[in-house]
Amino acid sequence: MKELSQENLTAVIQARPQDSHKGTFGRSVLIGGNETYGGAIIMSAEACVKAGCGLTSVITAEKNHTALHVRLPEAMVLDWTISQAFSDLIDTADVILIGPGLGLTTHSQQILAKVLQQQQSSQWLVIDGSAITLFAQNNYSLNYPKQVVFTPHQMEWQRLSGLEIIEQTVANNQAIQKQLGATIILKSHRTEIYTASSHYRNPLGTPAMATGGMGDTLAGMITGFLAQFQDKEAALCAAVYLHSFIGEALGKEKYVVLPTEISKNLPYYMKQAEEKR
Amino acid sequence: MKELSQENLTAVIQARPQDSHKGTFGRSVLIGGNETYGGAIIMSAEACVKAGCGLTSVITAEKNHTALHVRLPEAMVLDWTISQAFSDLIDTADVILIGPGLGLTTHSQQILAKVLQQQQSSQWLVIDGSAITLFAQNNYSLNYPKQVVFTPHQMEWQRLSGLEIIEQTVANNQAIQKQLGATIILKSHRTEIYTASSHYRNPLGTPAMATGGMGDTLAGMITGFLAQFQDKEAALCAAVYLHSFIGEALGKEKYVVLPTEISKNLPYYMKQAEEKR
Amino acid sequence: MKELSQENLTAVIQARPQDSHKGTFGRSVLIGGNETYGGAIIMSAEACVKAGCGLTSVITAEKNHTALHVRLPEAMVLDWTISQAFSDLIDTADVILIGPGLGLTTHSQQILAKVLQQQQSSQWLVIDGSAITLFAQNNYSLNYPKQVVFTPHQMEWQRLSGLEIIEQTVANNQAIQKQLGATIILKSHRTEIYTASSHYRNPLGTPAMATGGMGDTLAGMITGFLAQFQDKEAALCAAVYLHSFIGEALGKEKYVVLPTEISKNLPYYMKQAEEKR
Amino acid sequence: MKELSQENLTAVIQARPQDSHKGTFGRSVLIGGNETYGGAIIMSAEACVKAGCGLTSVITAEKNHTALHVRLPEAMVLDWTISQAFSDLIDTADVILIGPGLGLTTHSQQILAKVLQQQQSSQWLVIDGSAITLFAQNNYSLNYPKQVVFTPHQMEWQRLSGLEIIEQTVANNQAIQKQLGATIILKSHRTEIYTASSHYRNPLGTPAMATGGMGDTLAGMITGFLAQFQDKEAALCAAVYLHSFIGEALGKEKYVVLPTEISKNLPYYMKQAEEKR
Repeated sequence: MKELSQENLTAVIQARPQDSHKGTFGRSVLIGGNETYGGAIIMSAEACVKAGCGLTSVITAEKNHTALHVRLPEAMVLDWTISQAFSDLIDTADVILIGPGLGLTTHSQQILAKVLQQQQSSQWLVIDGSAITLFAQNNYSLNYPKQVVFTPHQMEWQRLSGLEIIEQTVANNQAIQKQLGATIILKSHRTEIYTASSHYRNPLGTPAMATGGMGDTLAGMITGFLAQFQDKEAALCAAVYLHSFIGEALGKEKYVVLPTEISKNLPYYMKQAEEKR
Repeated sequence: MKELSQENLTAVIQARPQDSHKGTFGRSVLIGGNETYGGAIIMSAEACVKAGCGLTSVITAEKNHTALHVRLPEAMVLDWTISQAFSDLIDTADVILIGPGLGLTTHSQQILAKVLQQQQSSQWLVIDGSAITLFAQNNYSLNYPKQVVFTPHQMEWQRLSGLEIIEQTVANNQAIQKQLGATIILKSHRTEIYTASSHYRNPLGTPAMATGGMGDTLAGMITGFLAQFQDKEAALCAAVYLHSFIGEALGKEKYVVLPTEISKNLPYYMKQAEEKR
Repeated sequence: MKELSQENLTAVIQARPQDSHKGTFGRSVLIGGNETYGGAIIMSAEACVKAGCGLTSVITAEKNHTALHVRLPEAMVLDWTISQAFSDLIDTADVILIGPGLGLTTHSQQILAKVLQQQQSSQWLVIDGSAITLFAQNNYSLNYPKQVVFTPHQMEWQRLSGLEIIEQTVANNQAIQKQLGATIILKSHRTEIYTASSHYRNPLGTPAMATGGMGDTLAGMITGFLAQFQDKEAALCAAVYLHSFIGEALGKEKYVVLPTEISKNLPYYMKQAEEKR
Repeated sequence: MKELSQENLTAVIQARPQDSHKGTFGRSVLIGGNETYGGAIIMSAEACVKAGCGLTSVITAEKNHTALHVRLPEAMVLDWTISQAFSDLIDTADVILIGPGLGLTTHSQQILAKVLQQQQSSQWLVIDGSAITLFAQNNYSLNYPKQVVFTPHQMEWQRLSGLEIIEQTVANNQAIQKQLGATIILKSHRTEIYTASSHYRNPLGTPAMATGGMGDTLAGMITGFLAQFQDKEAALCAAVYLHSFIGEALGKEKYVVLPTEISKNLPYYMKQAEEKR
């Protein structure tokens, strides 16, 4: 077991190359946000853009488009009806995130099936929230498991792994990770990361962060980091650590830290990490 | 009569347990916001989330959904048509707030009747604004009066208690409180709290707070405090005191204090209370 | 001619009475904002609320409701179709503002006619923007001219008074003011106020304020001041002076001062005026 | 080749004349923002208003109106259906910007054709984003090329000029500029400006600015500067330099600089430039 630390940030967050443009820092497509949970995908998008992704597009129920544009005019938006435009947009992605606020309807399931089927060998796929539940319920399989990240909390991991929370030991989790072949980011008050070769533990995190939307924000940060940084495992470690690091820092002044405040502060804390190298 | 003080804050606002998650801090469902008073339920929701409730859902006219998502993507939202989804969502609540911007139509009345009928023995119910007027007009009764809080201003209390404002003495208020069996938070420039066993008086409050929406914000704070703190009477005292405490503090620099600014500052003042213990 | 000064602020902006509630500081109803100029009435509403009006309602095209709720949940909103609800809401007002973004269509004209006809002897009426043009075009008359304020810029004053800009001398303006019987706030880079008995000149104002929406903001401030302060002529002088005073103060750091920034800063500058007494 | 410098700012950004009004600083009409790229024209509008344009109107898909009003009530808005109102609004403009988020549909093309045909000898026209691609695809021509500015990035310049990126040398670019007769602002990490008589190079720019929407923001700044400053070539140089200057300044504290933050900071940096004279 490796404990995450400040070194995981400085290993990843480096000075950007001078001769770069928005394409240099990757294209992300985020999918989620039904009629009830629209805020979830908006929070993911804010985290992705403010984490430094070059170009961020959001596929969500049309009802959420105006709210997204108000909060984040930097993001492009497409209705989540499955269509040619939907498929075309997914094809442009370096990283796809599916799940925040996706819901559990037949339509949600069809979107997930479409994305799983369409993932290309060059693309990373992050599966979060209700997409994890749908994946488990439907016994879906992965085309490129090594390029997939699941981000379950403990109940979602129970559904995906078949392990009751009390059975979620490191050894059991590692065994299921090997079966799935994907990276697992198991969220709790001390989040763990399981990859094919390693097991990381995040020593940070504060109860001030225990509020709805924190997971959506983490999923967006992970997406933005995968889009722009080359060492993907290192990027995941950095995203998990930084999310809690900012939460703890803000939690020194605030009894509750809202997810959107984590995102707002990302550019400052990433700059500090760059300068600590 | 007990006068509220800083001790009412420090008694309640304590360091959160380390091993917690969003479920630890409660689920609230807020109901209100018609086509004209949509801002009211939005202000309640902001107060509830920023007071530290773990998960906040809002049931409101569809017209208000986009504005809610823009201001508060952390909240979930459902249309206020009475439906299976409506009932299911209410069943998940630890605390239900009904009233801010609810209006006085037949539909408003049906929603209130539904909520009163559906309240479970494990749930707290806060009845505010037009829901108080509707409750009085229809002679509704309470399933679990000990778990109900009314938050009338003086005119609403007149409707509910039958007491003219000039008759609203402590003795008369206490008598009506006993009949109702619920806690009464009687709002004025010196707000009072009547419970079965106690009578509290808030010494704070400033005319800078005399602007539309302050009551909606207080109702949201009360809901968020009931959701996360175990001693409910203490939680109510703390919410009432803190609302005015922040208002007075901001009022030192501002001639008018907007309700949404109270909410914005909640996490800072709650942290200060935690640290004063 | 009296030159406005800091004394006009301190004469009006005084410590609020302790035993007050939102009703103490007046009810305003603001009417305007068509499909193209929705921002105008939103800016007026922000100014009115932040100037300290107790309760602010906005009657505007439905298209603008969501944007208003996002920016200002403190305000109530009603569709601008002429209806019973429309008339009922106007009846509740202490001050009515009509004009910002109202437009020049037949519907705009019908709304203006309705409001002019409905004004009661206890109500103040502020006529701004396109409502001035419509008033002039239709030769409307006033029920209670002493309780009406027109806020034209020079071109609108030309339409209302029949005076070409070059003819807009103090003597000519005073003569027309006497015919109209209403107060005239003639906006320019040195705004003037004409009442039955006095002529004021504002020495302040900066070209940093020369941007669209400044007049809408001033109209909202005037409305909020009339709603809460008892000496109406003094309130008008204070509103005009403070608008420019804040603009000049912000203009020391900004090349351009947006109207919404004037409103945002109102509570601070009003507090300073209170404390300078 | 002339390298842009601080002098290009101080040459243009001067103290505004005291006796001015919003008309003094020009009228801009911005056209773009389809159902997917609505954020683009919103970002342009924010830059235009905060750069000091006197009156800013936006013609965009109706879907984007609410988001625009929320973020920028200072702007007026019109649906982008081609109509009499559309033509009338364009006629009022001192500067027209077309392109940000315009898209590549037949409707987008019709709008561009209409604007190119309608441009008057007194109006400046800025052609950005997808409007450049459409212009190239349809071999459109310009009525008043000396009053046109193209703002391509390298791929768009390839489409417009026929020059592969590797062929985009100064000599080749100058040759195509002469054919087109318009000013070319060729965006890259070191942006260049080609006019009939000069070639400028921007020494500033930071990879922190390499994120979607930066070009939309620059286009809005250019529009706002053309609207209010008399020496148009100098205005273009100042806009390009200031955009990167602010980006670099903010990039000292932030790993990523969002386009909307450039706009937010415009009034401060313009004031600094005025005072450095």
